[in-house]
Amino acid sequence: MAGNSFGSVFRFTTWGESHGPALGVVVDGVPPRLAMSEEWIQPFLDKRKPGQSRYTTQRQEADQVKILSGVFEGMTTGTPISLMIENTDQRSKDYGDIAQRYRPGHADYAYDAKYGIRDYRGGGRSSARETAARVAAGAIARRILGEDVVIRGALVQMGPHKIDRSRWDWDQVGNNPFFCPDPVAAEEWANYLDGVRKAGSSCGAVIEVIVSGVPAGWGDPIYDKLDSDIACAMMTINAVKGVEIGDGFAAAALSGEENADEMRAGNDGKPRFLSNHAGGILGGISTGQDIVVRFAVKPTSSILTPRQTITATGEEVDLITKGRHDPCVGIRAVPVGEAMLAVVLADQMMRHRAQVG
Amino acid sequence: MAGNSFGSVFRFTTWGESHGPALGVVVDGVPPRLAMSEEWIQPFLDKRKPGQSRYTTQRQEADQVKILSGVFEGMTTGTPISLMIENTDQRSKDYGDIAQRYRPGHADYAYDAKYGIRDYRGGGRSSARETAARVAAGAIARRILGEDVVIRGALVQMGPHKIDRSRWDWDQVGNNPFFCPDPVAAEEWANYLDGVRKAGSSCGAVIEVIVSGVPAGWGDPIYDKLDSDIACAMMTINAVKGVEIGDGFAAAALSGEENADEMRAGNDGKPRFLSNHAGGILGGISTGQDIVVRFAVKPTSSILTPRQTITATGEEVDLITKGRHDPCVGIRAVPVGEAMLAVVLADQMMRHRAQVG
Amino acid sequence: MAGNSFGSVFRFTTWGESHGPALGVVVDGVPPRLAMSEEWIQPFLDKRKPGQSRYTTQRQEADQVKILSGVFEGMTTGTPISLMIENTDQRSKDYGDIAQRYRPGHADYAYDAKYGIRDYRGGGRSSARETAARVAAGAIARRILGEDVVIRGALVQMGPHKIDRSRWDWDQVGNNPFFCPDPVAAEEWANYLDGVRKAGSSCGAVIEVIVSGVPAGWGDPIYDKLDSDIACAMMTINAVKGVEIGDGFAAAALSGEENADEMRAGNDGKPRFLSNHAGGILGGISTGQDIVVRFAVKPTSSILTPRQTITATGEEVDLITKGRHDPCVGIRAVPVGEAMLAVVLADQMMRHRAQVG
Amino acid sequence: MAGNSFGSVFRFTTWGESHGPALGVVVDGVPPRLAMSEEWIQPFLDKRKPGQSRYTTQRQEADQVKILSGVFEGMTTGTPISLMIENTDQRSKDYGDIAQRYRPGHADYAYDAKYGIRDYRGGGRSSARETAARVAAGAIARRILGEDVVIRGALVQMGPHKIDRSRWDWDQVGNNPFFCPDPVAAEEWANYLDGVRKAGSSCGAVIEVIVSGVPAGWGDPIYDKLDSDIACAMMTINAVKGVEIGDGFAAAALSGEENADEMRAGNDGKPRFLSNHAGGILGGISTGQDIVVRFAVKPTSSILTPRQTITATGEEVDLITKGRHDPCVGIRAVPVGEAMLAVVLADQMMRHRAQVG
Repeated sequence: MAGNSFGSVFRFTTWGESHGPALGVVVDGVPPRLAMSEEWIQPFLDKRKPGQSRYTTQRQEADQVKILSGVFEGMTTGTPISLMIENTDQRSKDYGDIAQRYRPGHADYAYDAKYGIRDYRGGGRSSARETAARVAAGAIARRILGEDVVIRGALVQMGPHKIDRSRWDWDQVGNNPFFCPDPVAAEEWANYLDGVRKAGSSCGAVIEVIVSGVPAGWGDPIYDKLDSDIACAMMTINAVKGVEIGDGFAAAALSGEENADEMRAGNDGKPRFLSNHAGGILGGISTGQDIVVRFAVKPTSSILTPRQTITATGEEVDLITKGRHDPCVGIRAVPVGEAMLAVVLADQMMRHRAQVG
Repeated sequence: MAGNSFGSVFRFTTWGESHGPALGVVVDGVPPRLAMSEEWIQPFLDKRKPGQSRYTTQRQEADQVKILSGVFEGMTTGTPISLMIENTDQRSKDYGDIAQRYRPGHADYAYDAKYGIRDYRGGGRSSARETAARVAAGAIARRILGEDVVIRGALVQMGPHKIDRSRWDWDQVGNNPFFCPDPVAAEEWANYLDGVRKAGSSCGAVIEVIVSGVPAGWGDPIYDKLDSDIACAMMTINAVKGVEIGDGFAAAALSGEENADEMRAGNDGKPRFLSNHAGGILGGISTGQDIVVRFAVKPTSSILTPRQTITATGEEVDLITKGRHDPCVGIRAVPVGEAMLAVVLADQMMRHRAQVG
Repeated sequence: MAGNSFGSVFRFTTWGESHGPALGVVVDGVPPRLAMSEEWIQPFLDKRKPGQSRYTTQRQEADQVKILSGVFEGMTTGTPISLMIENTDQRSKDYGDIAQRYRPGHADYAYDAKYGIRDYRGGGRSSARETAARVAAGAIARRILGEDVVIRGALVQMGPHKIDRSRWDWDQVGNNPFFCPDPVAAEEWANYLDGVRKAGSSCGAVIEVIVSGVPAGWGDPIYDKLDSDIACAMMTINAVKGVEIGDGFAAAALSGEENADEMRAGNDGKPRFLSNHAGGILGGISTGQDIVVRFAVKPTSSILTPRQTITATGEEVDLITKGRHDPCVGIRAVPVGEAMLAVVLADQMMRHRAQVG
Repeated sequence: MAGNSFGSVFRFTTWGESHGPALGVVVDGVPPRLAMSEEWIQPFLDKRKPGQSRYTTQRQEADQVKILSGVFEGMTTGTPISLMIENTDQRSKDYGDIAQRYRPGHADYAYDAKYGIRDYRGGGRSSARETAARVAAGAIARRILGEDVVIRGALVQMGPHKIDRSRWDWDQVGNNPFFCPDPVAAEEWANYLDGVRKAGSSCGAVIEVIVSGVPAGWGDPIYDKLDSDIACAMMTINAVKGVEIGDGFAAAALSGEENADEMRAGNDGKPRFLSNHAGGILGGISTGQDIVVRFAVKPTSSILTPRQTITATGEEVDLITKGRHDPCVGIRAVPVGEAMLAVVLADQMMRHRAQVG
């Protein structure tokens, strides 16, 4: 309710600002007796952390996670798991300029309008640095889901440039700095993003996350549907402006015949679907097919090209946003999207278990 | 949590199946001393109700709302408002066929997989008939929001056919059976949809809802953002597969310069934005600009063209879905989308008031 | 949140006023495929309903429950169960006097202070008539709990007169109009309450509810403890002013040695406790012992003896509360207390299943 | 839902174990622009902290609070406030004995039965050390409530020994190590508790908290009543077994005439009540009178007298609980009860504002 928690049975609460001493998350409702350690969580954070290539912000943060509670002798105890990540490379002086100036496309004005106060350093609470906390929560969620549920994300569009889906290769995702499954596109994007970066500009992106191994039956109609929870989750990620399930907006242009995912009897006693326009969810409930989610990330608002804006006192000024920023914040949204899908699924799995047993 | 409620401070719970005796909604948290009556609510239901043109299902339902509690001498009392709508034109025999057969694209299989039982008559709980209850809740939400907040929806795409935005005229929306703001498109859609209907097929649609009059400051970062609440709300509507705020997916292809909504000092002491790519929301908080939401509705799954499917016992069969259905369920989703926006905004307004006063 | 719902995974929402057309409850989160019918629910309502002896209000209400949704062919479907009870014996003219006068001990003034409006007829929403809805929800909760969990309540004190616990006999509870387990006390109470009634006065009571068959492990520390949920539940019942678990307030006077419920190894592999001062709950979690709850009900505020009060406009007046009232509202609180324990336990059982499996 | 959060609009989540590196709380929903600092919070923690007299545990903890987020330049920002308290005086070796043995009256067995694992060191999560986190949250809640709302607690019974209410003097509460408002009783308790302590025993207590300055109108009927929220809050405190509002259990023995709090017209346009049997709450809503709450704390379960118990493997043993313990844990429950009342009231105040404006 108060805004900084997500989930119901599996529920986490994040805290912290970009330039505060630390940020963190309290994860509640975790089943007991799961193997848990900092070593399990850290690789997920490493995947998201900045400074790994010239295509992300040069802020150097180890993003080292520390478990403060809820784990005993390497196992979860069922009590809240508190995780903390210290901030180590704040450079607040970069932000003197924006104390009084509203960066266009940023939350600066909105926060001031709402609260009448804001920690302007690095965007404060609205910084994408908060997503580290979600990624940590997502790592715990994955432990709950187990190894049968496989969650994999990829960048499928950078700026106006889409991948060629016929070249999709999951093995390529780890081979380039963009989580791109199409090696040819990855090459092109490298050039494109270099140009964007050098121009002091930025670009947007589209991320696709696919989950396999979710059994049929998860999701709580009518208002906690699996897809409505996912849409909510994705839209909470910084800079996201659109979410799709399955064919998404393209479904509007299909005929009823085309869109119907026909069924045949599978060998395992379950239906075998002949297509997956629905993206694995019907009536808000999983069908056992792959869950397919896409979300759009707008271009980074912090750019070096001057933009017209106003100050807190209403003065008209031009603004260049200095500091260290991602030219394409969508890249690092890939592990964040995966994490948010993991937390939605863990929650829905446990809720399903609550009601249906 | 249990799935059939929406909202937090302003919260409603719906109940009822397509072919049960009635359906309804309990609306809780309504501020006291608001004028309220069945006459206020009914026009919103009339806008959604079926059988108003040859383009919607021919099921004849008066959708007459009855207030059972929470209103005293024409005013809300602050206690829960219970609203009931009786079902009067069920024809359950139409549904004998689907008791054992899973309609492709429908929730039949998913409900069985989850619950091991389902009321198959007319889709039971998964029927779009449930949306009448939301529309009633939305009418109450509009009373809370007052007259300054204007919520208007329109169909902007039917099947593959988009409107020409240069012809957008809100006054046209009431002049055609499609809530279409472009009179030329409306003519074309009439022909198109006649063809779809006669072919025993169906088509999808895209709806856009625009809200003016929302002040800057509503929305609860990080996990109850105004846009994440909206995305959730829209995705709970039957057959919705995608949601966008502002430029949505198109934002991914913009440069940072293009996407930045620049600000100048307005005459009223508030900023004047030079564009609205953000759709009125930054950092999950309203900016005072128009809130712009789009969502995609897939084609109606109930079609007269045979599709391959299986039975509950795994037998492979072909299925034609008889009964009375909308050839384009997206049309009636327009008032539903408006209602869901109203409930999200009423809740966020009251939550903002709770925290900030 | 909005006040008229209870529970989390198993969750119900009540609505309706004393003199409105009906009252009801929507029960959400019910597991599917449980046998459910009006015949199952009605006996619980009959136990609570008024007019069954000269010791309760003479308002004649059949309290006939109607299932409007969520049950199909005699079984729950997992979708919300809407239950409605029509009001048939309102006599609103009895309440003309209190439209402007605040009855001492009643919620009249408090409701006006909060909402600035109230349905004064029969107490409106604050009437104990609302408890019928909870009892209906409790009947569903009992189905979830199954037959192994036995919930039984009794009146253990009427006015200043306590039962003799050495005479406790559960079989007596149904043999007198007071749910009294001590036949001697029941006789004495009959005389006592006749005197109270004839004097135009009223009296309070203490109810004890005991639950057997709850396995060890239910309850969600720290803030959704089994006992904190129970305390909350009991205190939501009209006129309740105190709640105890196990020895309750008497525990304060015990020594640590006396209070410790010592354990020996039981034949079933579980501990055998040598006493039950804790009332079956330790650390907020059930221990497998009987759960023992007591709550105190204040005397009915509606009495025929004049009391000093003021009007809505601040005039000082004397007030006699006419109408039909229970001289000891605590009697009918017995089935209500049982119902509230049932809903707490069903919710906690399902929550335990969610987290621990 | 998941158990470690409390409140709705104003909501906090605690984490940490007795012998972990730290414990803490995340407080969400705090209004912006309130003065906030570690200096404001610390005195409340100091009041609760152990080792201040020979009557509490000798564990030496500074209980130094650290603000990690949500405060900027001395003011709340409206974002979550994360507070951490490091544990510095763990002596885990004291607890080797209880790794396998269930302490009677403790949560040991219940936690094992629920989770199948527990951090036994110092009681782990079930330790009263957790209450430090609540007290910190309560300090923030007090800032929200402002100076007009005065919350004061006192010990009114130690073991079987009650205070003489005619000697009640708030100024005495700070003059003895028991928060006792009766100086004579305080003297007697000192001797009594010395005896208890030397005997290796323990005793219970009753705490009363009184709040003045709450305006009429707070509280959310039916299921989030001010009194049901309070009952829940008090019962979440370790070792509490009973809660009363106003006359509580004694109300059961009153006649309707005695119990009715009669009203006269006050000089300020508000009613003047002639008594306060209701404890300031009617129908779940505050009346403007003092709110009066009492709760009973059982004797500390950790005693030096051997008790019969079993081991995790079912072996029958005798157990002495070594370690450092409060002979009367009720003493330190006084500031904890105050804090819990503060959080309930802050939440209800904000909820009232949400609905009624």
